[in-house]
Amino acid sequence: MTNLNVPGLDLPAYMREVGERARAASRVLASAPTAAKNAALESMALAIARDEKDLLAANAQDVASARDSGSDAAFVDRLTLDASSVAAMADGVREITTLADPVGEITDLKYRPSGIQVGHMRVPLGVVGIVYESRPNVTADAAALCLKSGNACILRGGSEALHSNQAIAKCVREGLAAAGLPENAVQLIATTDRAVVGLLATMDEFVDVLIPRGGKGLIQRVADEATVPVLKHLDGVCHVFVDEHADPDMAIRIADNAKTQRYSPCNTMETLLVHERIASRVLPALAQIYAAKGVELRGDPGARAIVPAMKPATEEDWRTEYLGPILSVRVVASVDTAIDHIARYGSQHTDAIVTGHYGNAMRFLREVDSSSVMVNASTRFADGFEYGLGAEIGISTNKLHARGPVGLEGLTSRKWVVLGSGQIRK
Amino acid sequence: MTNLNVPGLDLPAYMREVGERARAASRVLASAPTAAKNAALESMALAIARDEKDLLAANAQDVASARDSGSDAAFVDRLTLDASSVAAMADGVREITTLADPVGEITDLKYRPSGIQVGHMRVPLGVVGIVYESRPNVTADAAALCLKSGNACILRGGSEALHSNQAIAKCVREGLAAAGLPENAVQLIATTDRAVVGLLATMDEFVDVLIPRGGKGLIQRVADEATVPVLKHLDGVCHVFVDEHADPDMAIRIADNAKTQRYSPCNTMETLLVHERIASRVLPALAQIYAAKGVELRGDPGARAIVPAMKPATEEDWRTEYLGPILSVRVVASVDTAIDHIARYGSQHTDAIVTGHYGNAMRFLREVDSSSVMVNASTRFADGFEYGLGAEIGISTNKLHARGPVGLEGLTSRKWVVLGSGQIRK
Repeated sequence: MTNLNVPGLDLPAYMREVGERARAASRVLASAPTAAKNAALESMALAIARDEKDLLAANAQDVASARDSGSDAAFVDRLTLDASSVAAMADGVREITTLADPVGEITDLKYRPSGIQVGHMRVPLGVVGIVYESRPNVTADAAALCLKSGNACILRGGSEALHSNQAIAKCVREGLAAAGLPENAVQLIATTDRAVVGLLATMDEFVDVLIPRGGKGLIQRVADEATVPVLKHLDGVCHVFVDEHADPDMAIRIADNAKTQRYSPCNTMETLLVHERIASRVLPALAQIYAAKGVELRGDPGARAIVPAMKPATEEDWRTEYLGPILSVRVVASVDTAIDHIARYGSQHTDAIVTGHYGNAMRFLREVDSSSVMVNASTRFADGFEYGLGAEIGISTNKLHARGPVGLEGLTSRKWVVLGSGQIRK
Repeated sequence: MTNLNVPGLDLPAYMREVGERARAASRVLASAPTAAKNAALESMALAIARDEKDLLAANAQDVASARDSGSDAAFVDRLTLDASSVAAMADGVREITTLADPVGEITDLKYRPSGIQVGHMRVPLGVVGIVYESRPNVTADAAALCLKSGNACILRGGSEALHSNQAIAKCVREGLAAAGLPENAVQLIATTDRAVVGLLATMDEFVDVLIPRGGKGLIQRVADEATVPVLKHLDGVCHVFVDEHADPDMAIRIADNAKTQRYSPCNTMETLLVHERIASRVLPALAQIYAAKGVELRGDPGARAIVPAMKPATEEDWRTEYLGPILSVRVVASVDTAIDHIARYGSQHTDAIVTGHYGNAMRFLREVDSSSVMVNASTRFADGFEYGLGAEIGISTNKLHARGPVGLEGLTSRKWVVLGSGQIRK
């Protein structure tokens, strides 16, 4: 594959060809045997390991261009591959072979009074579009997850990683061919033209779902342009609510971990809610911990009455995903106020209560409408690996289809199957 | 409620108020006890039965207007209520009380190595918008299904049924109030302004899913305008494939029933595919049956070689949902050709194979990508009641979320729940 970003390329026609090839490949993949899919994954992993030098050379080109164009250190860091990240990529692909094949599973097959048996069969979605930025390992991860779930995929990586992505895609397609599966099951868009995203997002005939992975700007753009369904989350404004019936030590441990274990993930806590009856027992200790780790606190008047060193929080703070060492803190008078706060300001991503009170735990679980709702656990657990999905293609805060961490199952849906013996409708 | 289709109404502001009221009501409904929801349904049913005279009087107004404006007989028929249809409406609402409450069900709760328990909780979607035409009973049916599944709903019926719908909605809201639930859980849009549909379809903040029920024109319009997710099917181009290994009598019985039991439903067969090795044993007998029932046949050359009286089928016929006594017939050389034909021309609604061959049955089940795939049963079984859903709000040919007949479960999704005892992420 070469860079097709050349004057004169008929982009809509090119994308249509890509779509048609993906649709055709998706039909083959939908009924591909588990063994063939696993063999392809194994071959991909071997090819990636074998081509380590080529991958690193291609990546060095991308990294040099990024440096030349003055990209910041974090950007270059996300883009850069080394021997250990290439090995990790190969291992990640190989691990998908160990996951159960979700496709074709029949469940709930029950006899109806008419004599027919009715149940569900799990089936691939068809063609998955993935739009992503910088990290080249997404090329291998996403291709592997789509393949195992029986979907064809169209990958559109960032232009900054084009050489790296092409080198990885070559290994992926070699693996497909080695297993007798269509190479077009994984297509990497070879042009860096930004108009590709808009086309991909509106190819309803050829794309069944689009998954944007990257910064909020990218995701918002894809969501705004899309007519195809988009699996996404925009924000992770996650809360921990320390109920009055919480064990103070547990509350401090969870509030610390949820904020500081890592600052940038979407499941990191951004707002701490504390019941007024326990605030004076947990906030001073927490303020010390956060201060030692350099976390800036922004509190409402109730919180500042206990920890006067906090800056005042503004209305904007309650809606902000800091993705860094800043935390907003509010003292609330009841579990109701906490639940209301989360409904009003949250992003329906992940929210946790710390409590020893059965009724409050049950209310929080039921009434908080987020993709993950937790009792006495750190929000940082909202993750496909921690949930046992084996792998994750993203996190969804959609209300339909998949919510929360999306693994193989989220890349499938269920059709109805009916087994009869000649029944007709009366 | 009165008709607000008056000059000077600020429609966007009105719709925004409706949306805000629905969102607020949805939060109450999401955690409403099963008993309260059932009590509301019972009160609705009683109110509908009690107000029979008022409903019929309101309906008589609508019917008179429809007749005055020259509507055709079928249209007036769909619009008209009588004592028995009012009783059936009340019974339908009451029957929803007997269905299991899907909301709050926790499944798959498993311990992970970290010590947390991870599972799913079934939750309402939130606010459901329903856009429908003519049949006033949808007002009661849709309200009852949304209520039982814990969703608030915004109903936009056809202007031709406004008085009927208002009279029914009055009973529905009375039932909600009697059970202590918010009346705004069910709101009937009181203006007949067609711009309402466009507004409803783009109120992402207030509407979680939109369900259009009616003719293809309405559904296409809603789908084209919508930015909110739409649960829909546009076409029901359903197939029966008679495999070479079919029992000829069973094939004839199913092909007859799938076409002629009723002509207008979306799950009625529109194209019959017959394997060439069995065609001469089933087509002549079927042609006689169809002729006796007035069904016009349009065949490919293979079919016409056996039944010369058939008209020739055009390319357009294979894509057409006749919704009437017309059937296209094609003779195919293999199960592959049949599956290819369905993939190319079908609408992913409902397709059936008639066969005694295990391998062909399994291949058809797996490879045909339709919302319902059947072996040895009439396509007419694709129906919420026949599948045991108890009720049906529509049929979806979407690939994400719900496929096929959509009942209470299709009006819900699943969030993740995590039960811990103080775990933090390492």
